[in-house]
Amino acid sequence: MREIIRKKRDGAALSAEEIQRWIRGVADGSVPEYQSAALLMAISIRGMGREETIALTEAMIHSGRVLDWSRLGRPTVDKHSTGGVGDKVSIALAPWVAACGAAVPMICGRALGHTGGTLDKLEAIPGFRVKLTAEEFAAQLAKIGVVIVGQSEELAPADGLLYALRDVTATVESVPLIVASILSKKLASGTGSVVFDVKCGGGAFMRSRDEAHALGRELVDTAGALGRKAGSLLTAMDQPLGFAVGNANEAAEAFAVLRGEGPPDVIEVTRALGTAMLVLCGVARERFEAEARLARALESGEALQRAESLLQAQHGDPRVASDPSRLHRAKVESRADAARAGFVTALDARALGNLLVAMGGGRARKEDAIDSAVGIRLLRKIGDRVETGETLAIVEAHRDAPEWAEAVRGAYTIGDDRPGSPPLILEQFGR
Amino acid sequence: MREIIRKKRDGAALSAEEIQRWIRGVADGSVPEYQSAALLMAISIRGMGREETIALTEAMIHSGRVLDWSRLGRPTVDKHSTGGVGDKVSIALAPWVAACGAAVPMICGRALGHTGGTLDKLEAIPGFRVKLTAEEFAAQLAKIGVVIVGQSEELAPADGLLYALRDVTATVESVPLIVASILSKKLASGTGSVVFDVKCGGGAFMRSRDEAHALGRELVDTAGALGRKAGSLLTAMDQPLGFAVGNANEAAEAFAVLRGEGPPDVIEVTRALGTAMLVLCGVARERFEAEARLARALESGEALQRAESLLQAQHGDPRVASDPSRLHRAKVESRADAARAGFVTALDARALGNLLVAMGGGRARKEDAIDSAVGIRLLRKIGDRVETGETLAIVEAHRDAPEWAEAVRGAYTIGDDRPGSPPLILEQFGR
Repeated sequence: MREIIRKKRDGAALSAEEIQRWIRGVADGSVPEYQSAALLMAISIRGMGREETIALTEAMIHSGRVLDWSRLGRPTVDKHSTGGVGDKVSIALAPWVAACGAAVPMICGRALGHTGGTLDKLEAIPGFRVKLTAEEFAAQLAKIGVVIVGQSEELAPADGLLYALRDVTATVESVPLIVASILSKKLASGTGSVVFDVKCGGGAFMRSRDEAHALGRELVDTAGALGRKAGSLLTAMDQPLGFAVGNANEAAEAFAVLRGEGPPDVIEVTRALGTAMLVLCGVARERFEAEARLARALESGEALQRAESLLQAQHGDPRVASDPSRLHRAKVESRADAARAGFVTALDARALGNLLVAMGGGRARKEDAIDSAVGIRLLRKIGDRVETGETLAIVEAHRDAPEWAEAVRGAYTIGDDRPGSPPLILEQFGR
Repeated sequence: MREIIRKKRDGAALSAEEIQRWIRGVADGSVPEYQSAALLMAISIRGMGREETIALTEAMIHSGRVLDWSRLGRPTVDKHSTGGVGDKVSIALAPWVAACGAAVPMICGRALGHTGGTLDKLEAIPGFRVKLTAEEFAAQLAKIGVVIVGQSEELAPADGLLYALRDVTATVESVPLIVASILSKKLASGTGSVVFDVKCGGGAFMRSRDEAHALGRELVDTAGALGRKAGSLLTAMDQPLGFAVGNANEAAEAFAVLRGEGPPDVIEVTRALGTAMLVLCGVARERFEAEARLARALESGEALQRAESLLQAQHGDPRVASDPSRLHRAKVESRADAARAGFVTALDARALGNLLVAMGGGRARKEDAIDSAVGIRLLRKIGDRVETGETLAIVEAHRDAPEWAEAVRGAYTIGDDRPGSPPLILEQFGR
């Protein structure tokens, strides 16, 4: 190990065999954490070349069980978001795409820092189980074509161990490490193709367009080198997606999409990702066909029905898809009112994400529990005209919370001129 | 800690307060090893500025007890070598300088890797104790002006913890970390001045002249910034120093110096260091005076007597200073004979150091035990004329060992032309 660490410290490329030796040692506990920490730091500073990233990803995939859906009889496709605020897309997208004929074996994450997590939003649904046995997972995927579960410890266990270490050693922000972490989990889950929603902007981990582009490119190319079809969409994450920021309220908003009632931006991103998924996995030959299938599944109610089947299969209350009032929401509302008239020119997604953590609806540390009932309801977003004293947003909590409402007001910037409407989908590429 | 690690990862300078926070956490165990490992790697790659190195050294000094000899009534001076092969200088130097009127509170290290350690050589002397209590240390220094002991866990404990971690995370070779490690131990021991013997060449940690110069400079300047007088000598370490490589045999060779019988190169380096020490601590006003004092102490037998007092004070057999046959040496000799006639043009110190480790006389790992009786006796060194079949060196072991003799032969390069004689003292500077 010392020689491997020294090599990367001095900026040399590691061989596939050296990388495998390290990852095997991480998985079986024979490489101590301090040696991995030193190597992670050397990788963070020195970087990794394409071949090294591929070798790292492959070694991490094979650190645990690798699922195989090649006998399923349907093409498999998954979606991964790099994380944002108000991003409830997965909950609508997975059943919708399944209703179009693809199988979606979706592995999701939890909230961390200012970003939300699909698993926490699903757990706001009474009874919903985010853990399935391997047999339950396979049977459900074969039967209804969609499963949404948390990361299993059996899949890419080296990633879980390294991620925890990266978190405490300031080695999270490294493109090769991020790529290997994301891809190892996704590819170990056996999906034949995967679409990445690379969030870009103030509320995302990648704040600049260049960083987001580099990550999206690297994800697609590395997945391709490992024989999987992959595509990336770069989507804007400056203001939150949709009107709801929270857990129960975001789940409600996701189901609204499937009833044709969702906020325009959530619908646009969900449709764009669904289109890319259907084309990538081969269910549709081209974008036009994919868009038509998605439209048909929505209008016919099949997408909503598939969501109900998903809820039922995983022991959740299936009625919440049509009746969001069945979700438990905090009752005490505090209003954030506009201090002046004008146009909303900016709405700080990161500040709202951090506020949700402070309200108990997010996680500062991995082990924190979440209160899924609290949230923020945005009434005005960027470009909207507001009058003095008009309500911009409402904090939903268990008590009167003027300080949180004040923080929400602080996340709004109001100016005199109507801002332009920047695109939501910034870029799209893939194989 | 995460923010501190991140800062250094991104190449920024750490504040004195941040460095103190880290080192306090190392000493009290509140900073986990993996975080220190990540930070050590970031420092190895990004480096540290002068102010950071000073702050790190100071924080490490104050991680434990700091001795104070200001009331001793005599100037204190110590010597530190960066490590080489055959470097037995300290054993002769400390009593010799003490016999000239300085007090030498010497803290020494153990063999590691291909380099030897003064402590292990002293432990080859029957009964010699390398651990003293603080009271014993002070009483002995006041009485005979010289003490040689191992690193106490009370002095700069953060250094011991970090050194162990650096060893296993490939972060040993970093000038600021080396400087802080060396200086923190030396300055915590309370010496008012210190001379560094920075070894340079194939058998040293610093192989190039530039590296050795940079380290020597940094040691002197950092010690100066912390209010201590310091000087550096850069000395050649391409072939071993002297004829003996081992432990008991090296101790014997060191005492020979004090009887006026030592090998010329050992004598030259010892005299040069002694001269620098006496001038630096103020016992002599100039080099000429220091050289005269050293000569007088040698000729009068005072240096040898002081060595006997040192042995006696630390429970060693004082007779070994005059009668080296009292040291236990391995009896079975294997000869390395010259395969051809010519001149010795190179003699690989590192290879011989590593061979000694293989023979059991050195340490591959810190916890290894040492066999002090085994060794290598060099009969020919660089520049010597040899005939075919003539013995170059003798392996002293507990059994016939033709393979070790063969390895010794491999360390010799014999050519047709007599090589030039390069200088032993390459450079000298200080305050």
